Amino acid sequence: MAAGRPLRALFFGRFQPFHLGHLRVVEWSLERFDELLILVGMAEESHTPRNPFTARERVEMIRLALSEAGADPARLHVATMPSLPVGAASAHLVYSYTEGFDAVVTNNRIIARAFADAGFRVVRPPLYDRERLQGSRIRELMARGDPEWRRLVPPAVAEYIDSIGGAERVRDIYAGARR
Amino acid sequence: MAAGRPLRALFFGRFQPFHLGHLRVVEWSLERFDELLILVGMAEESHTPRNPFTARERVEMIRLALSEAGADPARLHVATMPSLPVGAASAHLVYSYTEGFDAVVTNNRIIARAFADAGFRVVRPPLYDRERLQGSRIRELMARGDPEWRRLVPPAVAEYIDSIGGAERVRDIYAGARR
Amino acid sequence: MAAGRPLRALFFGRFQPFHLGHLRVVEWSLERFDELLILVGMAEESHTPRNPFTARERVEMIRLALSEAGADPARLHVATMPSLPVGAASAHLVYSYTEGFDAVVTNNRIIARAFADAGFRVVRPPLYDRERLQGSRIRELMARGDPEWRRLVPPAVAEYIDSIGGAERVRDIYAGARR
Amino acid sequence: MAAGRPLRALFFGRFQPFHLGHLRVVEWSLERFDELLILVGMAEESHTPRNPFTARERVEMIRLALSEAGADPARLHVATMPSLPVGAASAHLVYSYTEGFDAVVTNNRIIARAFADAGFRVVRPPLYDRERLQGSRIRELMARGDPEWRRLVPPAVAEYIDSIGGAERVRDIYAGARR
Amino acid sequence: MAAGRPLRALFFGRFQPFHLGHLRVVEWSLERFDELLILVGMAEESHTPRNPFTARERVEMIRLALSEAGADPARLHVATMPSLPVGAASAHLVYSYTEGFDAVVTNNRIIARAFADAGFRVVRPPLYDRERLQGSRIRELMARGDPEWRRLVPPAVAEYIDSIGGAERVRDIYAGARR
Amino acid sequence: MAAGRPLRALFFGRFQPFHLGHLRVVEWSLERFDELLILVGMAEESHTPRNPFTARERVEMIRLALSEAGADPARLHVATMPSLPVGAASAHLVYSYTEGFDAVVTNNRIIARAFADAGFRVVRPPLYDRERLQGSRIRELMARGDPEWRRLVPPAVAEYIDSIGGAERVRDIYAGARR
Repeated sequence: MAAGRPLRALFFGRFQPFHLGHLRVVEWSLERFDELLILVGMAEESHTPRNPFTARERVEMIRLALSEAGADPARLHVATMPSLPVGAASAHLVYSYTEGFDAVVTNNRIIARAFADAGFRVVRPPLYDRERLQGSRIRELMARGDPEWRRLVPPAVAEYIDSIGGAERVRDIYAGARR
Repeated sequence: MAAGRPLRALFFGRFQPFHLGHLRVVEWSLERFDELLILVGMAEESHTPRNPFTARERVEMIRLALSEAGADPARLHVATMPSLPVGAASAHLVYSYTEGFDAVVTNNRIIARAFADAGFRVVRPPLYDRERLQGSRIRELMARGDPEWRRLVPPAVAEYIDSIGGAERVRDIYAGARR
Repeated sequence: MAAGRPLRALFFGRFQPFHLGHLRVVEWSLERFDELLILVGMAEESHTPRNPFTARERVEMIRLALSEAGADPARLHVATMPSLPVGAASAHLVYSYTEGFDAVVTNNRIIARAFADAGFRVVRPPLYDRERLQGSRIRELMARGDPEWRRLVPPAVAEYIDSIGGAERVRDIYAGARR
Repeated sequence: MAAGRPLRALFFGRFQPFHLGHLRVVEWSLERFDELLILVGMAEESHTPRNPFTARERVEMIRLALSEAGADPARLHVATMPSLPVGAASAHLVYSYTEGFDAVVTNNRIIARAFADAGFRVVRPPLYDRERLQGSRIRELMARGDPEWRRLVPPAVAEYIDSIGGAERVRDIYAGARR
Repeated sequence: MAAGRPLRALFFGRFQPFHLGHLRVVEWSLERFDELLILVGMAEESHTPRNPFTARERVEMIRLALSEAGADPARLHVATMPSLPVGAASAHLVYSYTEGFDAVVTNNRIIARAFADAGFRVVRPPLYDRERLQGSRIRELMARGDPEWRRLVPPAVAEYIDSIGGAERVRDIYAGARR
Repeated sequence: MAAGRPLRALFFGRFQPFHLGHLRVVEWSLERFDELLILVGMAEESHTPRNPFTARERVEMIRLALSEAGADPARLHVATMPSLPVGAASAHLVYSYTEGFDAVVTNNRIIARAFADAGFRVVRPPLYDRERLQGSRIRELMARGDPEWRRLVPPAVAEYIDSIGGAERVRDIYAGARR
């Protein structure tokens, strides 16, 4: 790939949970960049309908999934970031708090705009089975007790979520929020 | 009760306003624990539809209601806490910033989950007339000008809310939010 | 006007964007007060449906519009303020962080209540064509690609928004938020 | 005392640890006010030379000392507050987050000034053996392993500090800070 | 000056208090730029030895001094900013929260470095009688009761500080901090 | 090593800059644990005497040094963390925001105490040439223009610092702070 300094991309998300769509974006990115920084946002929030899993659990899911997929750990970094205000100044904050990057990989139009307006390069990966592979949909399946969610995440993630009673937690949280 | 160190429970809420359901949870808790810490959350917010009353006003309501009910002040503590991110780490923050507790009394499934996942003991009090005794319902009655709200809070609280023009404030705030 | 110390009013808003209704409130205020402090709230947020423009862009819009309207710069101050919790304590924070004021000009009932309960004088300007002159309506026109928004803001603001591709940004952000 | 509404005073400190000088200010205040709110500041900090004890431990010390002294729990409230910026706006924050107060009891000239400039009434208690009864001096005795510190705090506080290995912690922290 | 868009410079400081050295930097800047944004930092702090005056008081001092000096209000803006972490990311925050600027005017090497490393243009004004014109020295004169401080600030600032009892406040604060 | 789940240790520091003593702690830890999480604290601060380098630069230094030393990237994780209040609650925050750990590796007595009091296992690595290998000493050498600092950091770090003009920045910052 790059002859001189390695090219690094940022992949930013909440990963609630890390699913097969995320995994494919990782693979797509590693074909185009030397290194990928996977940044887990809203690290301080857990136990809510949008963010049921803790930062620790999400990092663990990502590591397990990447290891299962045989990804090269020297080319992949995982880090966490507390909630930031949405905006162009936050793009600079993300850049300063991490090891830096040459491009941002995202299909989220708002994140794309904020980074682009702050002067960063943004690239759009293809959408993989977008109807099914969405975090909100997967959490709703968990909340309904529908085991279909297991087919939408990497096997190692399904196993890990089972080991921490994750689907039950999501059910409890959704029930609590409806009150 | 406990032979050695007194057992202390945490009762966590926004208390917008403190109503008869809250009072019964206090009474139920004092039958099971030596001391109860009533913690008023989201202390920094007031004048919104969800949190019309200031922390100062909410603490005052609680003190007046407990005094009216003849509760033993040596067994009851009231404190405030700014908004925290929902999550397991916040359970530890609450524990460190207060005098500590042996159990958490709550019917809120999300709070119950967050404290339980952080390793705390959680107990569920019975629900008292849940259809009527809800903060959101009481605030809506105030916003509609329906005096029925006065029957859902302890008399001392109704009197205090009247003394600060509280129902009128709620009406103004609900009207402003609808715009 | 005032013989002794000049009377200063606060006009608080998000100004997303600064429109003709805002301009009329400024003019109305300058007839009643010696000086007006226009305070741009939620300064840290941009690139969201509610707050598409950065603080920098909003201050620029306001300066351009006031200059176009021939307003006296010695009587007008523009400043920014990060998001504050809604409440009476925040009214004091706003007072301490700015050059101070003798009255608050607002039609927002919640802001009016919070400042009044904190002991400040609140005055209500007339509503100017409220059906059309609302920030949320103007942003929706932009998101739909309807050029009508240009007639609801001062010409200098329309020109500035065009120069930064502002309507396209709003369209992108609204599309991203719907996903 | 007061015929109508009870008069309440605020006593604000870090209480690292709660010592005999603090206890005398409490007693002096209870002769002049109906209720006293003891507010423990810098609640989020512990394990530093200035703030070795957690908020939880400090509240516990205060409760044990007041109980030992036979103080009336109905007239005494203890609460915690995270660090605030020093300044007049913070005086209003303290007022809003607590149950309120009619006067501030303090010998600290900076706190006295900040509350006075914000419009609050400030009263100065007499100084009790100021040379010996200072938190910083007591912590230094602990750090040096000098048991004299035990004579400067209420017996119940000395016993509590022993039960948590507090003097050893202070020694460790002072040694770590010198590095 | 500039043919097209006006050139704007940022002058960043704490202004505790605004003194004759500051005034000369303003004058020097107005000879080189079309507009100057005077940004008052650490807005949330007051009543400390380093920051005895509130943001409101500092903005007032600046306005009075500029008016006395006959400066053109259309070319001068004054705003406040809460404390930021020192660093390159903060330079972007300052840029986003204000109306923006083309250059930073400062003699502070740390601020100069932080803005330069973030990609901003930095210019250094000449030093005016640096031995005498320093905020810390002026505050020490006030604390000692030495009226010499009055000759180091613009007459309008001296008058304003007298009107709020500012020198006495500084004396109290310095005395309190020495304890 | 461990038969079941891998054992992970936390190595927490500011790494201003990452020096040979840090590198030896990494090596010592990898002999005892399966994985090591290197956590870069005070991520938001840069351009100060204590923290001249940004989080991005510090992560880059660590990656370059570990790669040069031939360390296995699959066993090493690097992440950043904003400043936290010192205290037991922060130990839980660090645990929740990262992928978790079984032990904390530190020679800092304060950090050791805070994590131990929060219930974590703490291990102390040997001290490597402590007189010479200290961040503060290395920064002072840089500030004085003494090239000796190059022999106290891994060669890749020296090269990287040269590439960003790091020693000159430290000199500027120290000179600015002395004023």
